[in-house]
Amino acid sequence: MIIQFKENSPLIQQVAAKLHAIPAHVEVVGTHLAAIGVKEYTPTPEEAAVIESITTNDKSFVLGSLEFQPEPTIIKLPHTTIGAGHFVMMAGPCSVESEDHVRRMAKVAKQGGATVLRGGAFKPRTVPYSFQGLEEDGLRFLREAADAEGMDVITEVMDVPHVEMVGKYTDIFQIGARNMQNFSLLKAVGKTKIAVGLKRGMSATIDDLLNAAEYIRANGNPNVFLIERGIRTFDNKYTRNTFDLAAIPVLKKLTHYPIIADPSHAVGVTDLVTPMAVAAAAAGCDGEIVEIHDDPAHAFSDGPQALTPDLYLDMTKKVNAVRKALQ
Amino acid sequence: MIIQFKENSPLIQQVAAKLHAIPAHVEVVGTHLAAIGVKEYTPTPEEAAVIESITTNDKSFVLGSLEFQPEPTIIKLPHTTIGAGHFVMMAGPCSVESEDHVRRMAKVAKQGGATVLRGGAFKPRTVPYSFQGLEEDGLRFLREAADAEGMDVITEVMDVPHVEMVGKYTDIFQIGARNMQNFSLLKAVGKTKIAVGLKRGMSATIDDLLNAAEYIRANGNPNVFLIERGIRTFDNKYTRNTFDLAAIPVLKKLTHYPIIADPSHAVGVTDLVTPMAVAAAAAGCDGEIVEIHDDPAHAFSDGPQALTPDLYLDMTKKVNAVRKALQ
Amino acid sequence: MIIQFKENSPLIQQVAAKLHAIPAHVEVVGTHLAAIGVKEYTPTPEEAAVIESITTNDKSFVLGSLEFQPEPTIIKLPHTTIGAGHFVMMAGPCSVESEDHVRRMAKVAKQGGATVLRGGAFKPRTVPYSFQGLEEDGLRFLREAADAEGMDVITEVMDVPHVEMVGKYTDIFQIGARNMQNFSLLKAVGKTKIAVGLKRGMSATIDDLLNAAEYIRANGNPNVFLIERGIRTFDNKYTRNTFDLAAIPVLKKLTHYPIIADPSHAVGVTDLVTPMAVAAAAAGCDGEIVEIHDDPAHAFSDGPQALTPDLYLDMTKKVNAVRKALQ
Amino acid sequence: MIIQFKENSPLIQQVAAKLHAIPAHVEVVGTHLAAIGVKEYTPTPEEAAVIESITTNDKSFVLGSLEFQPEPTIIKLPHTTIGAGHFVMMAGPCSVESEDHVRRMAKVAKQGGATVLRGGAFKPRTVPYSFQGLEEDGLRFLREAADAEGMDVITEVMDVPHVEMVGKYTDIFQIGARNMQNFSLLKAVGKTKIAVGLKRGMSATIDDLLNAAEYIRANGNPNVFLIERGIRTFDNKYTRNTFDLAAIPVLKKLTHYPIIADPSHAVGVTDLVTPMAVAAAAAGCDGEIVEIHDDPAHAFSDGPQALTPDLYLDMTKKVNAVRKALQ
Repeated sequence: MIIQFKENSPLIQQVAAKLHAIPAHVEVVGTHLAAIGVKEYTPTPEEAAVIESITTNDKSFVLGSLEFQPEPTIIKLPHTTIGAGHFVMMAGPCSVESEDHVRRMAKVAKQGGATVLRGGAFKPRTVPYSFQGLEEDGLRFLREAADAEGMDVITEVMDVPHVEMVGKYTDIFQIGARNMQNFSLLKAVGKTKIAVGLKRGMSATIDDLLNAAEYIRANGNPNVFLIERGIRTFDNKYTRNTFDLAAIPVLKKLTHYPIIADPSHAVGVTDLVTPMAVAAAAAGCDGEIVEIHDDPAHAFSDGPQALTPDLYLDMTKKVNAVRKALQ
Repeated sequence: MIIQFKENSPLIQQVAAKLHAIPAHVEVVGTHLAAIGVKEYTPTPEEAAVIESITTNDKSFVLGSLEFQPEPTIIKLPHTTIGAGHFVMMAGPCSVESEDHVRRMAKVAKQGGATVLRGGAFKPRTVPYSFQGLEEDGLRFLREAADAEGMDVITEVMDVPHVEMVGKYTDIFQIGARNMQNFSLLKAVGKTKIAVGLKRGMSATIDDLLNAAEYIRANGNPNVFLIERGIRTFDNKYTRNTFDLAAIPVLKKLTHYPIIADPSHAVGVTDLVTPMAVAAAAAGCDGEIVEIHDDPAHAFSDGPQALTPDLYLDMTKKVNAVRKALQ
Repeated sequence: MIIQFKENSPLIQQVAAKLHAIPAHVEVVGTHLAAIGVKEYTPTPEEAAVIESITTNDKSFVLGSLEFQPEPTIIKLPHTTIGAGHFVMMAGPCSVESEDHVRRMAKVAKQGGATVLRGGAFKPRTVPYSFQGLEEDGLRFLREAADAEGMDVITEVMDVPHVEMVGKYTDIFQIGARNMQNFSLLKAVGKTKIAVGLKRGMSATIDDLLNAAEYIRANGNPNVFLIERGIRTFDNKYTRNTFDLAAIPVLKKLTHYPIIADPSHAVGVTDLVTPMAVAAAAAGCDGEIVEIHDDPAHAFSDGPQALTPDLYLDMTKKVNAVRKALQ
Repeated sequence: MIIQFKENSPLIQQVAAKLHAIPAHVEVVGTHLAAIGVKEYTPTPEEAAVIESITTNDKSFVLGSLEFQPEPTIIKLPHTTIGAGHFVMMAGPCSVESEDHVRRMAKVAKQGGATVLRGGAFKPRTVPYSFQGLEEDGLRFLREAADAEGMDVITEVMDVPHVEMVGKYTDIFQIGARNMQNFSLLKAVGKTKIAVGLKRGMSATIDDLLNAAEYIRANGNPNVFLIERGIRTFDNKYTRNTFDLAAIPVLKKLTHYPIIADPSHAVGVTDLVTPMAVAAAAAGCDGEIVEIHDDPAHAFSDGPQALTPDLYLDMTKKVNAVRKALQ
């Protein structure tokens, strides 16, 4: 149930307190109050006077819906603002490979306009014998590289025991596609105030993604954005996944969370990344996250999809040109 | 096997004749000769002198490959050129509904820059009790409406016995997604010289699509273009299909056929058509085909995905802006 | 709308005639009358006295529904009965390869209990350069082989112009997966009285399949059965398709048409055919259709999924054992 | 690389020690030695004398392959043996609902021949506001109910911090489909000796599943079995997932791990569970896990797929009949 009030009023908190007692999950944002698990509420005449509408949300997610929060979520980081038209570029190597390498990649990322540096220190690898990341050393190298360039950091956190440690180094927790429904992890990052970039799972529907985001938001963390990174379909000979670009305008109709496109993982092949990055910008995403590497053939992971510095700079120019053309 | 000659030479036909005798399927385009079903060929010294290379194509399709024909296919119609950078807009109602209606829609289509008028006279409907089209009357209305505006016509042909009749009215045969592997129909249109727009089937891989096109090309008709219109995946709550936009740059790496995007069928929801049309242009398609209707609520078919005239004109402006930004 | 009468009565035809005049698509089977396209009907008092119920079917298919025809469809061929518990085995080579070969395969098929001989004379091949079938010669060889063993024939018809010719040789038209929504072909076989085995398309939902069957039934041919042959999913490394065995009990809840399992195409790998044939019998199918070959390595098509005579006989024993155990 | 020795010999450990020093991941089972990450090894003449073969495994998983361990994995629990033909039935409620309820359900489960009691105490729910389980109380109720009937316990562990606590109560850790690639969790249960039932993820390929199992096995725990529970495809109107029964014989060709079928989650609809349970037995699974409830309409979770006691007992009879028929 969502109650929309006509104006800011002390009665909002009064209603909230009464609903809390039912008990229900109650949240207030501005003049909107969501009471999840409550089917109906009869306001007092005094309350009724300041209530615009009482509606029942028929969606499985509530806090992420535009009915509850019509204004876009805006996430403010030291060097970056995400959401509400503040287009953001995130770039960096797939894995943090060394102190020196991530520093050089950070310079390239910055040059192309990125304000967020990406890099994996804990790597979720399909095969247990693949490189699993530099772990805490990698986090430190990543943080220092970002600081040197005046950038923010996004990096993956893979499990509950690592949330605190990873949180010391990063500005944004990335939740990987394989962990999109690791509900314990979603609750754990939901209890922090650190921004969370939630990747869509390989076989997650749009509703699944919004329900997963709801786990984070319902645990108290409003700093959530979504990442479309391709879904698994029958056709995977020429691309790693199928990039579901229509998810971008679909999500814009359903939620206030910013939506970031990840063309690198969506296609998995370097020469397809730029056309897909440009297409994602045209489709209306709030930013992009891409993998870059100066020597893809020797990358520790995901070399076949990395943009070289030249390709990356070319891509950012084209993305900017398209965004400008559509303004 | 593909033999690339250094130059145009009468020896090309000599080699072709010898290979024909094996017997093999032999085709020559410019200085490229494809001999399908032939594993090796030992040229005479005289022949060897004008041969650049002999390669074995490891793909299931040959005539559609860039190895056989590196130059893009260009299709010339009275009012339209398709391929090689000649961006084309095709628009019109889903079904031809009446003489008057298709005339009005043709005017709108033309206004937005379309040079090809679309409209269905034979409709492939999932349910047998749905409207099945105006048949030959519809074709005549469509042809007259196109002629009145100086446009070309694209319309669906659904079976072999209709090829001749539909061919009297149309400039382009559309092969629908459900008929993409109706091999008898592919052979029949392959025996004409009328251009063919081949829609990707709902569960067709990229290779399936190119093999289907090969049926048309191998029967003698080189005027083929491909239409990406969305594939069937697990997520179909908010969109009718999943628009596989990466197929556009993938196909550009594999084939010389032009690639047209059909955002209307790909998403099936009006307010998603424009962002996806713009994204498709950004991804590098050679044109778009969209459905328009002045009264979608009363359309005979597919009203929920039709662009009203205003939305259509807005879409074409955005598509043009993006194309210009990327030149 | 479906009207169920209490008993057989001349009033049924009276109501049918009145509904025909609306106009609607009206069909009567026993005491059930379906009037498709009619929203409501007010019976006369006399009619009302013999009417059990008037219900609106909320499905897209009507004639195929159990609401319209609660009794199972039974198809009687010279040597075979399909439906209502009459389990049928259909076997034979993928392609008719020669007069002699199909005769030998017919003997093997018969030995394992098959009463229907399968074999392709017109082959829908993904690649145009693959073997396309012996055409009318193949049909003749197939017919003669079946007659020699006292068996019925099932063979694929690929397009409208072939319906008459193929119909001279076969007891059952097979509509292939790629043609499941070739609506012109469905209408054409619907206008004959020859039995039709309709294969589920690679990306067809259960409803799509039943709507395709509706095309045949609505054109006057009640002798329809369905074939589950696997669907296309993301996992195709070890099997050609994903065998959707749950479709068998699902279809049993929805329709009166018999359901035949095609494990050969569903998995596409010889050593998986037997376990899947047995599983399909356990799941409740009305019969199976399998491919057999005495020399799979040299089969003209689909060798990798053919059962050798020994494997075929072993499979039929296991299928029979399971069926007996579940009686 | 896999080295197969002719006989048990102290030289096996000698070779292992040398390969460990490379460094590589080295494991020995009987006369088979796997050295993962090692490309070649030149044995001494003395070693060569006892070596049967040295082969390079081309699969991404090694320890789970039949090349490494040709004998089936056998898991021995107090009341149950899993693998190598020891068919096991696991049954119980979806959620542990109360001390009394789980006791009654345990009696029913036992009556149908189950030796393992299932029940969820920590529930991975798509929506955060759904019932999340009785947590440690639920585990205690489940353990006590199993002990009272002389049964083993299987229950889901959802995250790393819970492994120790859940391990105090259970004989088998269940890893849920959504956590199949929660690699931290796989490592954590891999470091225990408690048996692990690993569910296939909704969009996991066969190789993904075997690679996930490899995480557990490579961390030292050989007591692994796999659970097929349906995959996500385009068709989900009449079933929750698509039950990939061919995965059972496919896995039998690839791995020594036992394979358990979960028809309840695969189809998600009560009246489809029995035919699919029977089909799974026919396909050759090593056991089944099903959900039972005496009052499905009021179940805390997954009521629509629960078997009532009567249906459960009928199902087990049919499964046993089919297994006997195929012996």
